[in-house]
This record gives sequence, structure tokens and C-alpha cells, in this order.
Amino acid sequence: MARSRDMGRATAVVSAADVGEWHGETDVIVVGFGAAGACAVLGARQAGAEVLLLERASGGGGTSANSTGEVYLGGGTPVQKACGFEDSAEEMYRYLMASCGPDPDEAKIRLYTDQSVDHFHWLVANGVRFKESFYGDGSYIPTDDCLAWSGSELNTRYAAIAKPAPRGHTAQREGIEAGGELMRALCEAAIRSGPELVTDCLVETLVQETDRSVVGVLARVDGEERFLRARGGVVLCAGGFVNNKDMVSRHAPWLNRCRLRLGVDGDDGRGIRMGQGAGGEAIRMDTACIVLPYTVPKQHCKGILVNPRGQRFVNEDAYQTVAGEIGLRTEDGQVFLLVDDEIYERPFPPVEFEAVGETIEELEREAGMPEGSLQHTVAYYNAHAEEGEDPLFHKTPEFLKPLARPPFGLLDYRVETALWSVFTMGGLHTSVEGEVLTADGDVVPGLFAAGRTTSGIAAQGYSSGLSLADATFFGRRAGLAAGSRATPASSSG
Amino acid sequence: MARSRDMGRATAVVSAADVGEWHGETDVIVVGFGAAGACAVLGARQAGAEVLLLERASGGGGTSANSTGEVYLGGGTPVQKACGFEDSAEEMYRYLMASCGPDPDEAKIRLYTDQSVDHFHWLVANGVRFKESFYGDGSYIPTDDCLAWSGSELNTRYAAIAKPAPRGHTAQREGIEAGGELMRALCEAAIRSGPELVTDCLVETLVQETDRSVVGVLARVDGEERFLRARGGVVLCAGGFVNNKDMVSRHAPWLNRCRLRLGVDGDDGRGIRMGQGAGGEAIRMDTACIVLPYTVPKQHCKGILVNPRGQRFVNEDAYQTVAGEIGLRTEDGQVFLLVDDEIYERPFPPVEFEAVGETIEELEREAGMPEGSLQHTVAYYNAHAEEGEDPLFHKTPEFLKPLARPPFGLLDYRVETALWSVFTMGGLHTSVEGEVLTADGDVVPGLFAAGRTTSGIAAQGYSSGLSLADATFFGRRAGLAAGSRATPASSSG
Repeated sequence: MARSRDMGRATAVVSAADVGEWHGETDVIVVGFGAAGACAVLGARQAGAEVLLLERASGGGGTSANSTGEVYLGGGTPVQKACGFEDSAEEMYRYLMASCGPDPDEAKIRLYTDQSVDHFHWLVANGVRFKESFYGDGSYIPTDDCLAWSGSELNTRYAAIAKPAPRGHTAQREGIEAGGELMRALCEAAIRSGPELVTDCLVETLVQETDRSVVGVLARVDGEERFLRARGGVVLCAGGFVNNKDMVSRHAPWLNRCRLRLGVDGDDGRGIRMGQGAGGEAIRMDTACIVLPYTVPKQHCKGILVNPRGQRFVNEDAYQTVAGEIGLRTEDGQVFLLVDDEIYERPFPPVEFEAVGETIEELEREAGMPEGSLQHTVAYYNAHAEEGEDPLFHKTPEFLKPLARPPFGLLDYRVETALWSVFTMGGLHTSVEGEVLTADGDVVPGLFAAGRTTSGIAAQGYSSGLSLADATFFGRRAGLAAGSRATPASSSG
Repeated sequence: MARSRDMGRATAVVSAADVGEWHGETDVIVVGFGAAGACAVLGARQAGAEVLLLERASGGGGTSANSTGEVYLGGGTPVQKACGFEDSAEEMYRYLMASCGPDPDEAKIRLYTDQSVDHFHWLVANGVRFKESFYGDGSYIPTDDCLAWSGSELNTRYAAIAKPAPRGHTAQREGIEAGGELMRALCEAAIRSGPELVTDCLVETLVQETDRSVVGVLARVDGEERFLRARGGVVLCAGGFVNNKDMVSRHAPWLNRCRLRLGVDGDDGRGIRMGQGAGGEAIRMDTACIVLPYTVPKQHCKGILVNPRGQRFVNEDAYQTVAGEIGLRTEDGQVFLLVDDEIYERPFPPVEFEAVGETIEELEREAGMPEGSLQHTVAYYNAHAEEGEDPLFHKTPEFLKPLARPPFGLLDYRVETALWSVFTMGGLHTSVEGEVLTADGDVVPGLFAAGRTTSGIAAQGYSSGLSLADATFFGRRAGLAAGSRATPASSSG
């Protein structure tokens, strides 16, 4: 029976009664060796469980290894303290509750903010190095520095709710791709903890008892289908679905317009689909991290973002993901950044000018905007910026200055031309223990998930580092819970 | 085993092997007696199948009976012709493809537009009466007239893509609640066709074979749990999930802010959850029909909608659901309608003034808007309206006139105060035959669904009448397909 199975059918879970022979057995099977998977291994091993780690690619790392390696941590970490920033779990909680809404997962946010300092130490104990230094110029860190503002904490709106603190903690490595360093450390720690690792192994689907308990997986190893049993549980850490165009089209079609999909091939939603097949519910499937990449150099936040009608639509000091979310869903991805000669520097990633002019009127005409619209927007903005005010969007005074030195330029940040990037944030609904939940809120026994296979701390209003925070923290917890289920004696501790 | 089952657990499908005794058996079980269910019964009976119709309430009708009874039909219906409107399947297809996007269900739209005239005749043959008359003043029809503009067909944007035609067909009855009349006809037709009807019957969950085939339901009849077998299939027509606050919170939390949920108690997502439990995928769960009720009287479209920054954000001749979608998701539900003394009439539903003034400046100050913002917006709008132009949003000339006659008023259409209404559009993913599909795109054998239990023709950009169109057309098809599965001999015809 298994031989004839179509490899594409992640949802076609196998009934345990139909498993003729188990080809292997362990306590916990972890599916996927990215950040969530590595931490799930560590958690399960901490619970004393025997672990089998199955990875589809030829090695560990996943999408996390290609990331900036930034983890959202706070509440008073040693790095925050060393750099002179005060923070508390409560302020971090308030910021996340306000920025991840509406209706973010409060239980996850509460637990994570309460334990964020501990989580910092746990990451360090597992080999992740964070330099005690602050990088003040945005969250893409070209140096080996650590701490950075990686969200909208300083925005007037959020600063009124929660005392701002920078919480982006980037693993120590020169260059903006510190994810490789983060994952080198976590993968090494995971391997050291002693799981059995099988790479080049596609997990096709889950094996389930009639009472819905997940008891193993069907995996393809060396071209052969193998039934592998897990006494404690299966932990799905198989990434998101940004590289599955059909899934994106069904759940969040506008995302397909972004040019840069942040994901490895494995981010095809297979983990989510396996979970759905076993009865798990996928939630917030419309949500994503959508980056409108206009904030390098940082002084470009002194420019103004406008739509084709010449209207502003967001405070330009909003985090680039917030501007991206609004820019894509509200403004249909048709956005431009107006700069003057004083603030302009070559942007990264590169972007073209849509129009250049000695006056705003010329710019407006060249860009084909309605006559007078951009002129009014700039005149109104400048008059108030002169006073350090932004009555429309309350941009912080730091980024307010009249746009007055010609020539002026409209940078073309339209979604078709600029390098917008995106990854999905929707996925399986899980408890704080990483248990996969049904649409009725019941646990699917034996099935756990973490990372972008799940819906996590952030749904909307993404702050950089939240995805790795979520993956590492709840990945570890999912591993612990699955491990404890296999080794009940050790779970009381 | 069944006795101890928690009634809340729609997803906890029962394994067929665990069914001790079947208490009844039929060809097709239809769950829910609203518009989709009534038409599913008619479809299944047409296929020659024996039908058991289970309704949770004490009688048929569902949410459809409380609706305006408007069905989106076109392509040249007798009513369109009698009223002098030209239309074609192709123009209707183009409009729907453009307005229901991004990535609407093209197969459903193609099939529906191709067969819309036939569907009109089918509805008439089943007792639905449509008067050959046109009502020109919006889609809330206080008379017994039929045809109305019920979408954004006339908007500059869509008119450039598809030749406009009015397509809202309201069942004949005096007053805006013609849904009762529509459902009286469809329920009578369904009953006449000869199903067995059991009311006050909650279907708790589905019964499934290990190969995923759905073979029946577990239902509560007279306080007793009963296993009921369906040889051909089960058709879920159990409404949407607008009355399940937790589900809304998980999938589309912003909807919970709307004051008026358009749904009966049964719209608690149970049908969707049952389908998920059996392996079906729920898609576009963030989408909804969101009505910003500012278009009665219709001349209020000559006003301008503004946000608290005094900016316009939409063409005011957009259909009220389009303005609602943008107003809620983009403008956070903080919207006002500016009217002058010339166009103002008491709105329906009633709404309060946020501010009144002899000048726009006074209005702006009283509403606490940034100084000069509303003044600019009105001055700019008026200057162009004078010329019959709207360079920002391209509102049709019919609704363009300078707002110049004092006193001026800002009507408070904020979501917390005005009577915004909403129902959910997300649900199970189905084929054009009504088959429920998994996240891998496979059919769940024996499981069908229609109406708001499914994701249908419209996801975004709702035009009134599309939900009833979808429910009646694909409800019938789902019944036909399920019936044919039970009676293969008759299905070749």
C-alpha cells in the first residue's frame, strides 16, 4: 500500500492499523532541522528522550541559516544592560500585545516575555554568541554588533503604550547574514545532544491511530518508504509555505506579488499540510512578514512615502514590515519614497528613480500624479516638519525635516520593481507547549509543531527577530513536551 | 463510546469501524436547511437520490431568510432584458474576475457566469418570483422591485474592464427583507421534492472510513445520538462562522469589531470544523462581507469619506462592502462621511453627527482633525468636482458636486458607533462540483459542501447577491454530485 502512495500527499495520513511493519522506533521524531527543529531536539533531549531528527535537505539550517540571525529578546538581557537600555518583561509584553494585534496569542506573548531573559541565557549556553554592543543604524547590521531597534518601539503610538527598548539581538558575526552563525551554533548543539540525524529524508505524512493520536511518520529514506514510530510524539518544524504558490494563492494571494520569497525549497507548507491532515487547524493564514525595503540608509525615513495619488499613508519611521503590510494590502504595492538632495544616499537594496525634478511640481508631473496632490502633501508636511510636528502620522521628531533641497526624487518602491521580501506567518494553531490544536481547540495527541509551521507570537505588525524568537523558544518547548510524553518519569522535574 | 462524546467537538470525526449500529441510512444527507441546503436537496433529488435533510433550528431558512433576498445573476436574464440592460456571460465574468480578486476562484466564476441565465430559470422554476422591474436607488429595495446595481460595476475602474450591467436580482416582496420570500419558495420546493426532513437536529460530527471516505454523520435527534449513514455523501450547508467569536478571533479578528453580525445562531462554523476534521481545508478565512452602511440615501455618495487625518481613502461610489473592507482593514474602522446641506438626508440606518459647522474649518476643528487637513481635502475635491473630475479616486461624475452649501456635517461612521455589518466569506475549499478538497487538493470522498460553509465566488470586493448566488448554484451542484455518487445509473444523464 505504501509503495503506491503519491509523494505529494502530505494530508493523506496513514492509519496505524495499515502499517504492516515499523522500520524504526524512537521517543520523539523531529521533522525539520532549522531553528525550531534544532531547539526541539535540544528540548526533547533535555527531557531524556531518544530523538530521531529527519531533514529533507542535505544538512541543517533551513531558512533560519539564510536570515539575518536576529532574535527578538528583551526584558533586561545582559546585552541590553551592557548597552545601557532598561527593559522589563512587562514593557516587552505591552509592546508585543499592542503591535502584534488585533487579537495576538496572548498566552504565547506572556510566556515568552516572562522568560525572554532565561531564553537568552539558554541560547548562549547552546553556543550562540551575542556581542555586548549596540548598532544604532537599523536592524540590518553590517558589523558584528548585536543589539538594534528591530520594530516600531520608538513610534509615537507604541512609545505611549510601552517604554521603548531595542530588542533585536543578532548573533555575532560580521555581515548581514548572521543567521548562518546562529544556526551553526544551534545545529552543533543539537547534534552534540545526541539525536539520530537522517538527512535527505522527506517526511511524506503522519501515522495516526483512530483516536487521533499521532504515533509516527511515513518517510522516504534512500528512495525507500519507511514507517518510523515515535512513542512520545512527532514535532513538525518544517518551515512555512511561502514557496508553495498554490497555498499562497489560496490563503494570501497578494503575497505572490512580492519578488523575494524568504524561504528554502522546503518552505512549501508540507508541515502545515501534514498537521492539517491529522486534524490540526491552520490559522491566520493571511498573515506574513512583508518587507518594504526603504530604510537603508536610515535617513531615508526622513523622506515621505506616498501613493500614486500623492498621499502619505504611513509614518515613515514605522518598521519596514509595518510599512510593507500597509503598502501591499492597502496601497496595492504602489508606493514611492520622496527624498531631497539633503537626505538622499544610494539605497540598499538598489532601487530606481521614478521621477526626478528641481521642484515638487515637476516631480508630480513627471510621475503622472494628480496635479496639485503631491505639492499639497509636501507643502503640508514641510510646514509642520519645520515645527518638529507631523499632525497626520506623528512621525518622531528625529525623522522630521522639511524636504526642501533640490533636486527631488521619487524612488520607485512599487512591488513589481523594488525588492520587497516576504515570508508567511500563518500556520498550525498550537498551545504554549507546542501541541497542535484542532478547530475545536482540542489537542491532537502526540503531534507538536513550532516555527513557521505554526502561527506564533507575531501575526501582524512584525518586528524583526520575532520569528527566530518564536522558533527557538517554542521549538524547545515543543521538544520538551514531546520528550516528556515519551519519558513520563522525567517529566515531573 | 458515542454517549460520552462532547457535543462541542465537530472535528472529532468518528471512525466507521467504531460505529456499533447505524440508526438510519439514506443516499444523501444534507446538513443545514438554508439556501445552500435547500438547493442541495433539489440537486440530490434531481439525481434520483433519497435525501435526509437535517436542520439544527426548528425550521428552514437559515441566515438566507433574514437577508435582502438578492441573488447576483446576469449574462442577459429576462429581467435584465425587460429592463433594457444588455449583459453577457463574458462581461459578467470579467467584472467578477476583476472585483473578487486577487486570485479569485476562476473555475467557479467561469461556470457560474456561463450558466447564470439557466440558474435564473431554475430558481423561477422552483417558485422564486422576480418582478421585471428596475430599482434605481441602491440595492436595499423598499419596494417589490427586482433589478438593482449591487456592486461596483459602474465604477470607473471596473467599467473600463467590463461593460456595466445591474445584476442584483431581488425576490419579489415589498420591503428590504425579501430573503424570507426567497427562502419560503426554495424551502417549499425542497420539501415538495420529497426529502425526509428532521429539524431540531444538531449534526455533531462526521463518520469516516480509514480511506477518508465520509459515510455518514453522528447527529443528536430528540436528545439521542444517532449514527446516520449516507451511501452517496454528506453535503455540509451549515452556514459560516460569524457567530463564533473564537473562530473569528483566530482567523479574522478585526471582524469582531463590527456591531452587526449577519448570521443565525447556527453560523458558528460547525460545518467548517466538521469538514476540517474530515481532512478538508478551510481557505481565505480572513475574508468577509463588511458593510459600511453609508449609501442610504444614495445621494450621500456625493459626500466624501474621510479618515481622522481628513484624508479621503476611497471613491465614495465604491460599493458599500468595498468601502467597508478598506475602511475596516486600512482605516481601522475610523471613518466619517462629510455632507453638506444640499445632499444631507436622514441616513438609514441612523447615524450621529460627529461634528457640524458653518465652515469646513469649523468642522475640522470640532472633529479634532489636524489643522488644514480637511480644509485642503475639501478644497481640492470641490475644485475638481466643479469640473466633473476626481483625479484622486475617479468617482463617477454622477456623484461629483462641490460640497459648498452650509451647514456641513461629519457623520460618525466609526465601527464602534455606526451599524457596520459583517458575515464571513472564508470556508472549506471545494471543487465546482462541491467536493471538499484537502490542503493537497485531493477530494475527500463523500464529502460535499456549499454556501458559507465554503469559500465561494467572492473572497474580497463583495457585490451583494453573490453569497446567495453561490449558495443556490453550487448548493444545487453539490447535491447533484452527492446524489449521483449514490445513484451511478442516473448520473450519466
